Amino acid sequence: MRISELFTKTLRDAPSDEVAKNAQLLIRAGFVYKEMAGVYAYLPLGLKVLENIKRIVREEMSTIHSNELIMTALQRKEIWEKTTRWNDDVVDVWFKTRLKDDTEVGLGWSHEEPIVEMMKQYIHSYKDLPVSLYQFQTKMRNELRAKSGIMRGREFVMKDMYSFHATAEDLENYYNETIEAYKRVYDRLGIGDDTYVTFASGGAFTKFSHEFQTITDAGEDVIFLHRAKNIAINEEVIDDALKELGIERSELEQVKTAEVGNIFNFGTQKTDEMDLFYTGEDGEQHSLYIGSYGIGITRVMGVIAEKLSDDKGLVWPESIAPAKVYLVAIGDAASAQADELYNQLSDANIEVLYDDRDERPGQKFADSELMGIPYRVTISDRTIEAGKYELTSRRSGETNLLTHDELLAKLS
Amino acid sequence: MRISELFTKTLRDAPSDEVAKNAQLLIRAGFVYKEMAGVYAYLPLGLKVLENIKRIVREEMSTIHSNELIMTALQRKEIWEKTTRWNDDVVDVWFKTRLKDDTEVGLGWSHEEPIVEMMKQYIHSYKDLPVSLYQFQTKMRNELRAKSGIMRGREFVMKDMYSFHATAEDLENYYNETIEAYKRVYDRLGIGDDTYVTFASGGAFTKFSHEFQTITDAGEDVIFLHRAKNIAINEEVIDDALKELGIERSELEQVKTAEVGNIFNFGTQKTDEMDLFYTGEDGEQHSLYIGSYGIGITRVMGVIAEKLSDDKGLVWPESIAPAKVYLVAIGDAASAQADELYNQLSDANIEVLYDDRDERPGQKFADSELMGIPYRVTISDRTIEAGKYELTSRRSGETNLLTHDELLAKLS
Repeated sequence: MRISELFTKTLRDAPSDEVAKNAQLLIRAGFVYKEMAGVYAYLPLGLKVLENIKRIVREEMSTIHSNELIMTALQRKEIWEKTTRWNDDVVDVWFKTRLKDDTEVGLGWSHEEPIVEMMKQYIHSYKDLPVSLYQFQTKMRNELRAKSGIMRGREFVMKDMYSFHATAEDLENYYNETIEAYKRVYDRLGIGDDTYVTFASGGAFTKFSHEFQTITDAGEDVIFLHRAKNIAINEEVIDDALKELGIERSELEQVKTAEVGNIFNFGTQKTDEMDLFYTGEDGEQHSLYIGSYGIGITRVMGVIAEKLSDDKGLVWPESIAPAKVYLVAIGDAASAQADELYNQLSDANIEVLYDDRDERPGQKFADSELMGIPYRVTISDRTIEAGKYELTSRRSGETNLLTHDELLAKLS
Repeated sequence: MRISELFTKTLRDAPSDEVAKNAQLLIRAGFVYKEMAGVYAYLPLGLKVLENIKRIVREEMSTIHSNELIMTALQRKEIWEKTTRWNDDVVDVWFKTRLKDDTEVGLGWSHEEPIVEMMKQYIHSYKDLPVSLYQFQTKMRNELRAKSGIMRGREFVMKDMYSFHATAEDLENYYNETIEAYKRVYDRLGIGDDTYVTFASGGAFTKFSHEFQTITDAGEDVIFLHRAKNIAINEEVIDDALKELGIERSELEQVKTAEVGNIFNFGTQKTDEMDLFYTGEDGEQHSLYIGSYGIGITRVMGVIAEKLSDDKGLVWPESIAPAKVYLVAIGDAASAQADELYNQLSDANIEVLYDDRDERPGQKFADSELMGIPYRVTISDRTIEAGKYELTSRRSGETNLLTHDELLAKLS
């Protein structure tokens, strides 16, 4: 894409009321727009990052045979009353509104209850099990404070997945498969090395649930970590977990983290509460086991923006960057060669942001750094004379002069 | 995809409170689930249709250089007060709710005002114009009645696009380009021949706006049509339009239609109300011209479901069908050959629904018809003996015996 066709601009300053680094950078780079605290629009480059993250998550959920669907924001009161979770004292993040006939409805902050209710239509027999389904849904949560940018929104995108099983063992197996799929997701998102499967406060059925926690100073959580043994414990369950695992607190390192995923084993509690049963091979009615698995898509984008950025701006991993290459031409002769390279790279399906603006080179370089595009290619009289292209890595800052063939090989 | 991996089931009956044919068929075929009146979840097959429609719209919006973004559901009161449209007497479809601090917020039923507000950040000079942007957004509209299935939802997906121009002429040109892009969309969706650019009640700037109206008995509108002259007029403006065009009512045919798109020329009214101006080459401040262009994505899916279906069920055009082929094997020998064909077609990127269930053939045939998959391939002892495959077209009902090569050529 040519920058001249993009309506966004980089900004020198973020809005003065924006205190979170992730949102400051994303706003300045033209990736998001702040509608109100905790509510952000995603502009073309931000939407690309979001869709790239969703694509990776979608591919990994597909490997564990989950079906994608999309539930609704508007929610019926009766469904949530079955589990007492309509009550604002039980769930304090509801947004509620009313239909014209004065019927009260809620805006989905989670979809556990409506999914279980819906599955009554599709699960009758043991032959219908197991089932796993997921969605990318815009959730609404009426947070009292929303000061963490896109890391904690009042309106945000979540991947939530639900699995239904005939036995505790089958759920357990799927739960473990999901842990592996989540690890692959975080690896592909470039934060795998600093993301830990962490013991956290339990679901209904198990002593502990599992969170995926990523080390970052911007995090709101504290975990205790044993890197060598790959053990991580949320401080909220530290005493119980130490006892359970037979380790000493002194062996553990205390770090700040952000939660990027969580998974729960609900056992049969929710299905029992909501009257979802299946008929077994024995002809009898049985309780169903369910698991619930979340990844905050916009949140993880915020964590990556915080964690991988530097003093020049964002640094996207190639897997989710809105483009792979930022192309800058300096001078008229360079422009013609840049036009040509732009077409060649585009034809090779390599995404390029081509800075074709009438701007000074320093501004273009600064924008490419602020936007965090993995590679910058610079063409100038000097590079043309040398018969080379200048390739700069955003992450390392390293610059190399490459021939045309070397450049294409490197970028393909 | 194997049907055994799909959690949905076809249903003999739609819910008794569902009166719209489109929703009855889509629910029975397992494409949508009714959460409440006017609020539907999209199950895996329904989501595929929706995404296919979005892909086509996205490709065509890209040809007219529009940038995709995504705005927010939660909306600030102050923005809408600038145009008086916060007032429930002016706009009677608002859902409103409150933040924890009691600030009143709305749920987006349109995004004209927030887009104009946002663009104050990005449009300053004539050099920033023209700009076009669009989104696929889940809109909320508090409809008094919602009895048309997915054709009129309280929660629905809309593609809304907005263009900003320095001059009336530039807007006019873009408006006409958009009409052509919309025509291509409806052609690709399989309803082009019965969709008419229709004079409708005007925006702020022009006597008439334009709707895209598709002939269907399920429609809520009435238009007057001259097929040969390609003139269509919504009954709401019939007298004015007859005068303007110098034609007689007796020349026109009266037909029922459903609106599948609409476009407005707002002139400078909205930008003036909201204080969005640009600095011209002359250094002076000028008013901006804007156009607004909508396609109801879920609505058009409903219209297609109504219009192209028959007494056996849905009939999707190939361009948006959730799969191209429904594969049925009858007997054990056939199953082995079907497995092989399934792999071959999948490798060739041809989407197949493989009915691998332990069901009688009649049920499988009925389901393939209800789901509206364009082609059914049947393999049986008889076809194996003949060295052929049986290919049945959903639309024509025509069946042919084809060799392996002929089949692949036909489906590729």
